[in-house]
Amino acid sequence: MLIAVIGDGLCSAEVAALAEAVGREVAKRGAVLVCGGLGGVMEAACRGAKQAGGLTVGILPGRSRQDANPYVDVPIVTGMGEARNVLVVQSAQAVIAVHGEYGTLSEIAHALKLGIPVVGLNTWRLHQDGQERQDIVRAASPLEAVERAWALAQF
Amino acid sequence: MLIAVIGDGLCSAEVAALAEAVGREVAKRGAVLVCGGLGGVMEAACRGAKQAGGLTVGILPGRSRQDANPYVDVPIVTGMGEARNVLVVQSAQAVIAVHGEYGTLSEIAHALKLGIPVVGLNTWRLHQDGQERQDIVRAASPLEAVERAWALAQF
Amino acid sequence: MLIAVIGDGLCSAEVAALAEAVGREVAKRGAVLVCGGLGGVMEAACRGAKQAGGLTVGILPGRSRQDANPYVDVPIVTGMGEARNVLVVQSAQAVIAVHGEYGTLSEIAHALKLGIPVVGLNTWRLHQDGQERQDIVRAASPLEAVERAWALAQF
Amino acid sequence: MLIAVIGDGLCSAEVAALAEAVGREVAKRGAVLVCGGLGGVMEAACRGAKQAGGLTVGILPGRSRQDANPYVDVPIVTGMGEARNVLVVQSAQAVIAVHGEYGTLSEIAHALKLGIPVVGLNTWRLHQDGQERQDIVRAASPLEAVERAWALAQF
Repeated sequence: MLIAVIGDGLCSAEVAALAEAVGREVAKRGAVLVCGGLGGVMEAACRGAKQAGGLTVGILPGRSRQDANPYVDVPIVTGMGEARNVLVVQSAQAVIAVHGEYGTLSEIAHALKLGIPVVGLNTWRLHQDGQERQDIVRAASPLEAVERAWALAQF
Repeated sequence: MLIAVIGDGLCSAEVAALAEAVGREVAKRGAVLVCGGLGGVMEAACRGAKQAGGLTVGILPGRSRQDANPYVDVPIVTGMGEARNVLVVQSAQAVIAVHGEYGTLSEIAHALKLGIPVVGLNTWRLHQDGQERQDIVRAASPLEAVERAWALAQF
Repeated sequence: MLIAVIGDGLCSAEVAALAEAVGREVAKRGAVLVCGGLGGVMEAACRGAKQAGGLTVGILPGRSRQDANPYVDVPIVTGMGEARNVLVVQSAQAVIAVHGEYGTLSEIAHALKLGIPVVGLNTWRLHQDGQERQDIVRAASPLEAVERAWALAQF
Repeated sequence: MLIAVIGDGLCSAEVAALAEAVGREVAKRGAVLVCGGLGGVMEAACRGAKQAGGLTVGILPGRSRQDANPYVDVPIVTGMGEARNVLVVQSAQAVIAVHGEYGTLSEIAHALKLGIPVVGLNTWRLHQDGQERQDIVRAASPLEAVERAWALAQF
């Protein structure tokens, strides 16, 4: 199982704590954690995964493996900038979004376009034609997010 | 000037009419119209641009130039799937979103992340932390959308 | 018709003269010239195309349209580094290689892998299993290169 | 340490045996093996790595993790076709080419352009301006290839 955790490269301590707990739960269940490899939510999620003995993959936007946060085991060096966001979600069987900014929103949108399930923890809400779209599955805690991701994951 | 027009590959006649009018206005002002090269909003925008004698570029997701709609002058064949969305917005000096689905949302998000202005006609509304984010500049008509795009366009 | 002209970003005056002549011939026949958008062979080919009133497209590796040489009409801003080389050849109906370094070699290889015809002017020679591979069509002059590209171009 | 093993998706039993031995040596030394994730040389190298208890990453061109050979632990699903070749070499600290066709040649060229060391086992020979270019480091056996890759690997 590969699970992507997505979120901003800069985040509050509160958001980082959520991401770290998500990473820990993902690793406890034996899944590989995939992310964008940088700081903030990505680093917190990787740190959590390593605490639980998991394997972490960071799909980096730049050209240097040195850009990876210290908890990335396998840095993938894309050199393709924001277009790497598609690879993060497309490589995952489910995506967990923790808060997030516009980069995260692009990942949510790519995942939903591609039919990959997205679970959200305190993340974007999307409205079109005067109604909220309900394709992001909402979770109230890291544990619930991971449970929902498992239930929805694609094979 | 290069202006991107983004929107869904399948759209209502009403949305197509908006896109066609946007394409026409873009071409009238002498700009090159960039889009994803497929049907729906992309095709309507290209058709409008050609009515006004403009030049159209279609940045295609697949591997065949035959995928381009008949109003694309220059098909760019990326073979990179959804990751081509980044190229559409990154190549533009301003982006005009006409309605749209999740692919369009990914383009809006990429543009805002990259600091490229986005003008919206009846498009997504985005909420984070209980508030609507106001980074998409709203327009009420195709003409207003194009005028706002010109005012905001980057050089 | 879209024809790609590929070659190094730094080149001798002699190689530039070949590239310029190729660009001129491509434009004279009404084709769009596609290239990597930078200097050297790319710039010389675009300059030639503009002398003959042609249209030029530069598929740039970086994130700024300012990277384009002054003879590029339509800059495509990929931000994807060397991976943009695939787009240059994949968008073309035939490829003309003028001398070139390793970047050019990657484009030749991608084109041959994808089944896109490659005409070479003083370019790489490739040996495998003790024999020279003959998939690059050799031309002795810019005019011959363009004639051969036309004869081989895919539709 | 991440080492890329590159080669054709279809190969002779003799070439597969070389690739398998390379994969085994790479894993014995504790490195992660990165490849394009498909059959032929890629599959043989992954099989060798798994025999020695290593970790394998397959950077796939298509949109499905099902495309990965059975010895890939971590499939990266790029959906970007041939452009994924750049990611394979860019993610590695050294590249070992085992024979190979035009796809492999594109990877060799990208690596040399990016300054990533390439060790070759019975692979392409490249001539420019009437001389053979010597940038591919030749090895006579899988063991020698892996030793040379280690000596040259970038940090």
